[in-house]
Amino acid sequence: MSHAVTCTAPVNIAVIKYWGKRDEELILPINSSLSGTLSQDQLHARTSVMARADFASDAIWLNGKQESIENPRLQNCLREIRKLAAAKQTHQQGAPLPTDKVHICSVNNFPTAAGLASSAAGYACLVYALAQLYKVGDSLAEVTKLARVGSGSACRSIYGGWVRWVMGEAADGSDSIAEQVVDEHHWPEIEVLILVVSDHKKTTSSTAGMQTTVETSSLVKHRADKVVPQRMEDIQNAIRARDFETFGRITMQDSNQFHAVCLDTYPPITYLNDVSRGIIDMLTKYNAHKGKIQAAYTFDAGPNAVIYLPRENVNEVVNLVRHFFPPAVGAEAAFVRGFRDVPAAPVDAATLQAINRSVFADSLKYVMHTRVGSGPQVLSNDADCLLDASGNPRL
Amino acid sequence: MSHAVTCTAPVNIAVIKYWGKRDEELILPINSSLSGTLSQDQLHARTSVMARADFASDAIWLNGKQESIENPRLQNCLREIRKLAAAKQTHQQGAPLPTDKVHICSVNNFPTAAGLASSAAGYACLVYALAQLYKVGDSLAEVTKLARVGSGSACRSIYGGWVRWVMGEAADGSDSIAEQVVDEHHWPEIEVLILVVSDHKKTTSSTAGMQTTVETSSLVKHRADKVVPQRMEDIQNAIRARDFETFGRITMQDSNQFHAVCLDTYPPITYLNDVSRGIIDMLTKYNAHKGKIQAAYTFDAGPNAVIYLPRENVNEVVNLVRHFFPPAVGAEAAFVRGFRDVPAAPVDAATLQAINRSVFADSLKYVMHTRVGSGPQVLSNDADCLLDASGNPRL
Repeated sequence: MSHAVTCTAPVNIAVIKYWGKRDEELILPINSSLSGTLSQDQLHARTSVMARADFASDAIWLNGKQESIENPRLQNCLREIRKLAAAKQTHQQGAPLPTDKVHICSVNNFPTAAGLASSAAGYACLVYALAQLYKVGDSLAEVTKLARVGSGSACRSIYGGWVRWVMGEAADGSDSIAEQVVDEHHWPEIEVLILVVSDHKKTTSSTAGMQTTVETSSLVKHRADKVVPQRMEDIQNAIRARDFETFGRITMQDSNQFHAVCLDTYPPITYLNDVSRGIIDMLTKYNAHKGKIQAAYTFDAGPNAVIYLPRENVNEVVNLVRHFFPPAVGAEAAFVRGFRDVPAAPVDAATLQAINRSVFADSLKYVMHTRVGSGPQVLSNDADCLLDASGNPRL
Repeated sequence: MSHAVTCTAPVNIAVIKYWGKRDEELILPINSSLSGTLSQDQLHARTSVMARADFASDAIWLNGKQESIENPRLQNCLREIRKLAAAKQTHQQGAPLPTDKVHICSVNNFPTAAGLASSAAGYACLVYALAQLYKVGDSLAEVTKLARVGSGSACRSIYGGWVRWVMGEAADGSDSIAEQVVDEHHWPEIEVLILVVSDHKKTTSSTAGMQTTVETSSLVKHRADKVVPQRMEDIQNAIRARDFETFGRITMQDSNQFHAVCLDTYPPITYLNDVSRGIIDMLTKYNAHKGKIQAAYTFDAGPNAVIYLPRENVNEVVNLVRHFFPPAVGAEAAFVRGFRDVPAAPVDAATLQAINRSVFADSLKYVMHTRVGSGPQVLSNDADCLLDASGNPRL
């Protein structure tokens, strides 16, 4: 007998950053964090899981390539879900036996190499799909814990809208869970631009980087203990009140502070490059010129900028990007991609004059235009399954 | 009757950084700091001061150009020195009357635009020369206070060798003075490379930058109160013990932390660019490959790197710079300048392999090679005076 489930799950981009674990094994953070879940129309992971008693062994294919199932974090997820299924005896409700082997096939609808937080979407999707397969997904809070042991920030991709990861206090991680603050319909004016920077040199992995920060930075503990709690409070209030001025300020401050503690690490970790710095400079001057925050940048562990902004500012900001960070000649066509057409138009002279910086051509690969969206979805159409009837990846 | 004095004064480069004032007027810092004084053979300011009863007014020429004497910090220095001269009645010992007008002429022997901390040398030289002129320079501690009100870090240029600026506690600044830790003969093995980065965009001034940091960074107070005191203690012990491993580690950590609090400022301040980051990366991998700290970088409020290193590593590091940050074709001749010839030679393949980064050509203007040197000097030869007999700048 064969059981199969296919799901999609979203990317999330934190505005209060997760950086530093207090428990490496259980993936327990040193501070709470908060993110927007991005629409799956533009960015998602899709994962099919299939369990059968006659599979020789567990197996996984990522983006068309078989990978080692021995990855410890993957093993953590599988083990915890099977433990839960065994405890709840879910095979009596039609779930596979915990001893059945499972085949996993996952793809992203965006380039993984672009540094777009693919691991959060990937682990959220895997865990959500397995939770459905084993019928242990009734409590989303429980599912966020299972996702957390795969990849910390994956727990925030279990919900749509705006999501907090509460750091918790328990040594066993039982209270370190993600929770939805408001859903994706609460603040529909907010849209998102992802500026994908061209030159991706190999950088420090998040896992290694945050470990070194916790070990060597003399500022990160102060950040986690004294700065983040107030910011968490304030930004949730700003989101509930749809107060973009406060939301934007805290978002930019927290991105800056995350990169500050990276720089305070020894040896220092630097994810921002001159293109990132140029984007920060452009938006700082743009906001100053307008006398209010029009667009708020945030940077994860790489040089790509993610910009949260009200819909009414999208056209102007996209055209500022086209002006100051234009694509290579001939690459204009697919430069801005997303759910809505943003016509090219000149920005007014006063704004360009206020920003007053040199043009940095061919520094961005493309701009992804998206918005805040929903949590993981189950695809019930058999045609959506990435595995064929015998459990092999469809090509 | 005419009185004239000509002096030179050195540049200093901090290894524990000064960033943030607790009193803007008196220039009182939020933390103590420590620097090496650099040899005046390569870098110095030279200043002549002349007082005469019949000058129409005070006047100043900087690098050949007359500047406004109304500069508030300049006025602070003049006022404080005249006040001291009046209190001590030094005109009775042959000093000018405090009511006499003064002409000031100052030049640097290096390009001011290169971002080489010229204001510290300039104010130290001005104050030191005026203190000689007015015969109020008996106590160097007093002179450091006078220099401090011109430009905070200038107080550290009043001594040679390794110098600490003790932040002090008094509200009137009376105990915020510089003191020599050890003189320039204590650790003669230490040499200095200044890597002058080509692309000098206009950046935030130190004065404005540190003010914004104090107002907006949630990390800088923790740095000043909790981190710097221990580092001051530790680095002084390292200097006294000539312990380069400890000295180098703290130097790099404190440079990183200074730039971290700049980045934590809102809006963020970034002085490091991709060339600076490349130099950090090269030295981090070089030190790791050798299994001990061979060379320690530090960056002030700009992209230029200053490298403190033992003499035995100078040739290798200069040749690493030549390899990874080579001058433009045709600009090799004056690329490395300084007190000793550093022959070009290939670096061994294992070291290059360990560093493993792409070459960044034409990213440095030149490399200045210098060392730790002496404090301000009086030039007693009349020919050294920058002013002619009637008090006008010599051309």
